[in-house]
Amino acid sequence: MKQGKNSWKFTNGVYIAGNATVTGPKEAQGPLADTFDYSFDDLYCNEKTWEKAEQALLKKSIELTLSKTNTRQDAVDLLISGDLLNQNISSSYVARDLDAPFFGVFGACSTSMETVAISSSLVDAGHCSKVVASTSSHYSTAERQFRYPTEYGIQKPNTAHCTVTGAGSVLVQNEKSAIQVEGATIGKVIDYGVTNPLDMGSAMAPAAANTIVQHFKDFGRQPEDYDIILTGDLASVGTPIVKKLTEQSGYDIEEVHQDCGLMIYHDSQKVNAGGSGCASSAVVTYGYIMQQMMENKLDKVLIVATGALLSPTIVQQKESIPCIAHGVVIKRVKD
Amino acid sequence: MKQGKNSWKFTNGVYIAGNATVTGPKEAQGPLADTFDYSFDDLYCNEKTWEKAEQALLKKSIELTLSKTNTRQDAVDLLISGDLLNQNISSSYVARDLDAPFFGVFGACSTSMETVAISSSLVDAGHCSKVVASTSSHYSTAERQFRYPTEYGIQKPNTAHCTVTGAGSVLVQNEKSAIQVEGATIGKVIDYGVTNPLDMGSAMAPAAANTIVQHFKDFGRQPEDYDIILTGDLASVGTPIVKKLTEQSGYDIEEVHQDCGLMIYHDSQKVNAGGSGCASSAVVTYGYIMQQMMENKLDKVLIVATGALLSPTIVQQKESIPCIAHGVVIKRVKD
Repeated sequence: MKQGKNSWKFTNGVYIAGNATVTGPKEAQGPLADTFDYSFDDLYCNEKTWEKAEQALLKKSIELTLSKTNTRQDAVDLLISGDLLNQNISSSYVARDLDAPFFGVFGACSTSMETVAISSSLVDAGHCSKVVASTSSHYSTAERQFRYPTEYGIQKPNTAHCTVTGAGSVLVQNEKSAIQVEGATIGKVIDYGVTNPLDMGSAMAPAAANTIVQHFKDFGRQPEDYDIILTGDLASVGTPIVKKLTEQSGYDIEEVHQDCGLMIYHDSQKVNAGGSGCASSAVVTYGYIMQQMMENKLDKVLIVATGALLSPTIVQQKESIPCIAHGVVIKRVKD
Repeated sequence: MKQGKNSWKFTNGVYIAGNATVTGPKEAQGPLADTFDYSFDDLYCNEKTWEKAEQALLKKSIELTLSKTNTRQDAVDLLISGDLLNQNISSSYVARDLDAPFFGVFGACSTSMETVAISSSLVDAGHCSKVVASTSSHYSTAERQFRYPTEYGIQKPNTAHCTVTGAGSVLVQNEKSAIQVEGATIGKVIDYGVTNPLDMGSAMAPAAANTIVQHFKDFGRQPEDYDIILTGDLASVGTPIVKKLTEQSGYDIEEVHQDCGLMIYHDSQKVNAGGSGCASSAVVTYGYIMQQMMENKLDKVLIVATGALLSPTIVQQKESIPCIAHGVVIKRVKD
């Protein structure tokens, strides 16, 4: 059902049956390494091109999700997946090998929660029983598409992010399991005029703040209603901005806010502002957060995946970077 | 509710409150000109770049949909839109100017029915009351992104398509109106190994056939249950293939099949195989088909929007072109 202005509440029981996270080597050296299901040793992931490497990450995350939940491919009613690459190729080519209907979506790094929100809605409505929601990103495919050829070795400013190499998938279903999807708040496109593609934190923070504040209003909640309010990839530049903007709207999230982009790497890993990419929120949420929930250490989390709808073509036409953030509430099902 | 294997039936009443179509000059010289709400005189649509021209088309189609239905922007629960351009920029930048939540999707030229299917599901579920579903394409933005610089003036083979310059939007709602959305069949990614980006008809026809046959099975229907089975942009090369493939599966669609790519231009307009692009199925369906329905000349139509998930990057890596098609049933509400 509709909840407030821009939110949905899933009243018929929507659950996460299982999840899987796959990463590259750098993420496997980070503080959350133990929460990932599988990590490749190098960026090529046993493939010949970076694009095919990203497909390998995504494919493995879907296969692991199905095997971990004992789900046959033909029991999947729908795959919803999106990624950063032009024409959504990681998702489309992986979907080609899966015997299930497919929807491609694009929300840049907000894609993880866009796929979970749509999947949950379809399950809540009874249109689907089992939906796989997936996303991926890869450092090298993203760098060459959005910024400079990696061979060029450009020096990056401290505001730049490191795109997470990884993929995450969840199986959303109507059968009861340990983690429930309670609701979602769908974001608007927000543009504060940032034009620098090497400062995504500043660009995305206002969109995150807008969605978080709208979520509180729509559900009549306060920051303390959540164990964690998790943003996707605001990292060191965007994090203080989102806290300030939400505080200006009357909500102090300081005590409960965490950001995936700051959690996934050690400070010593030289990632400038922190992690980003569709996989940032996906592997941290489907890895660390859900593991903590399964271990009864977290009860209720609001995940706000943040996306910069950046396009090299249109930025060259002197446009600024519009951003968006979608929020999803997951909670531990108590026995 | 779920219907058969890959379909949904909307049982709570989902309706098309209104629609608008906007095109470029070439489409305004075609046989369906009278069914479009507005046509620009030149490809730049009063903008300085082709990308901004495509945004102008999309924006106008949304504005016209809202004004024709007397709907205020803040009454829109969600905009779902997608296009062919990298990073979905037409949709994202138009969404920036609309005061409503936004989901970007990517299904290449199947986007029109992907947006209508998701919108209808959300309305059927009660998560939204009013959703705008939109899509756009532009000859010049598509040519330079997917094929050759237009200045190069490459000679095209007869299998090539002409991307439709246009945009179409519908307002999907729960209040009763003259056209109902009855159900949808969600397509799988199908790849028959075509690698030629100048022959999209051959690539897409198997995906269209797969969705049409699955639709008949899921709903227990036959071709004669529809006044028209409309494919999106198979044009002269793909049309005989989809007829043959569906016939091989036991369904003869010859009598009821039409293709938007063959309807939108005159033979004399030099468009090689015919029209294509997200706007092909959108402007023909939201223009001609819905007008015929409003005039009581059509009762029930299955629209199968066909998409080639083509990527220049991955085709250069010797991959073939995966395709997809999504079907939506609309019917006239009898008094």
